[in-house]
Amino acid sequence: MLRMWMAELSRRSGVPVATIKYYVREGLLHPGEATGATRSRYDDTHLARLRLVRALVEVGGLRLAAVADVLTAVDTPDLPLHDVLAVAQGALSPEASDEPDPAALRRVDELVEQQGWAVDPAGHNRRDLARALAALDAAGDPLPGAALEGYAQLLGGLAEREVATIATDDPATAVRQIVVRTVLVDPVLRALRRMAHEHVSARTLPRGARTADPS
Amino acid sequence: MLRMWMAELSRRSGVPVATIKYYVREGLLHPGEATGATRSRYDDTHLARLRLVRALVEVGGLRLAAVADVLTAVDTPDLPLHDVLAVAQGALSPEASDEPDPAALRRVDELVEQQGWAVDPAGHNRRDLARALAALDAAGDPLPGAALEGYAQLLGGLAEREVATIATDDPATAVRQIVVRTVLVDPVLRALRRMAHEHVSARTLPRGARTADPS
Repeated sequence: MLRMWMAELSRRSGVPVATIKYYVREGLLHPGEATGATRSRYDDTHLARLRLVRALVEVGGLRLAAVADVLTAVDTPDLPLHDVLAVAQGALSPEASDEPDPAALRRVDELVEQQGWAVDPAGHNRRDLARALAALDAAGDPLPGAALEGYAQLLGGLAEREVATIATDDPATAVRQIVVRTVLVDPVLRALRRMAHEHVSARTLPRGARTADPS
Repeated sequence: MLRMWMAELSRRSGVPVATIKYYVREGLLHPGEATGATRSRYDDTHLARLRLVRALVEVGGLRLAAVADVLTAVDTPDLPLHDVLAVAQGALSPEASDEPDPAALRRVDELVEQQGWAVDPAGHNRRDLARALAALDAAGDPLPGAALEGYAQLLGGLAEREVATIATDDPATAVRQIVVRTVLVDPVLRALRRMAHEHVSARTLPRGARTADPS
């Protein structure tokens, strides 16, 4: 196993020395092995933990209290991996404070039932979806049922492939992957959707002047 | 055609009277038909335009200068619908100021070529995608090529269906739909992706304690 001093741990992890010391004081990082009155040696486990904390803080935008909650889940051996990931996912998107429209919420529950999805009724994913649907209603352009089902089937198929690539043998790595991919793949999908719109509209929409008379 | 006074136009559009007057002064809304020294009558065209302006401002988050640019495109009969929509789409996502990583940009261009997509090389969609890919690299979890292609094919198929539902006979309605759906369907997809992750991980990941010994 690799052994290193604090300076090297900082260089390899990209986390400043003062921040590493702060994480140790706050209990987010286990102390190094003391080799004298003032020096400690660190190893791969410290590096891995720092990478996870960095992903939670910098990519996930989590506050340290939320980071501590996720780390507690990672460090609880009795907790199944699915529940660890649920804790990480829940920490990523703090819920909006407004109550979602009851009709939109019923629509979401019908969709969940129709898709046969196992979704936590107390989690905020279903309320987030209800808020998004209600926003479309309020903008005067409600999403038709067939379109919503089409999106759900598409994202369901996508999730199968995405979850299959999670490292299930190591909870810390799995959580880091979940955080990074949940947060950072959203902008990839958004940019691809806009590019695809651009391409399809170039191909399928009328290209001529809207009032031109070809004669 | 429906004819109404200012008070009714305000009530029907949900836009305050003072704001409507401001839009008229700024040239974002055409004046009503004067019926005396101080009163004017408004009609369906005013209502439709106010709905469009409201969608651009409230849903798209556009500043009035950007709203004016989009309206100019809508009001230019020589401009093909595809170009009107490109103006609206471009106004929706102001570009980040940092230069995207050149290697990530090359990767995007290769993807565009491989998918056969018509994407404006000067538009910022491809640079937005390059930034999103570079963020995954920086987080130590680069997106594999096969995953990127899979996402692109998925979103390409989605865009075919989405663009097919745009009202091509009326540019103002088409722009309103593009703005509302571009902005407000993103959160629908995000929530569905998280719900699908939750469902798939419940079904496929090991459910037991991670260290439990069943003996």
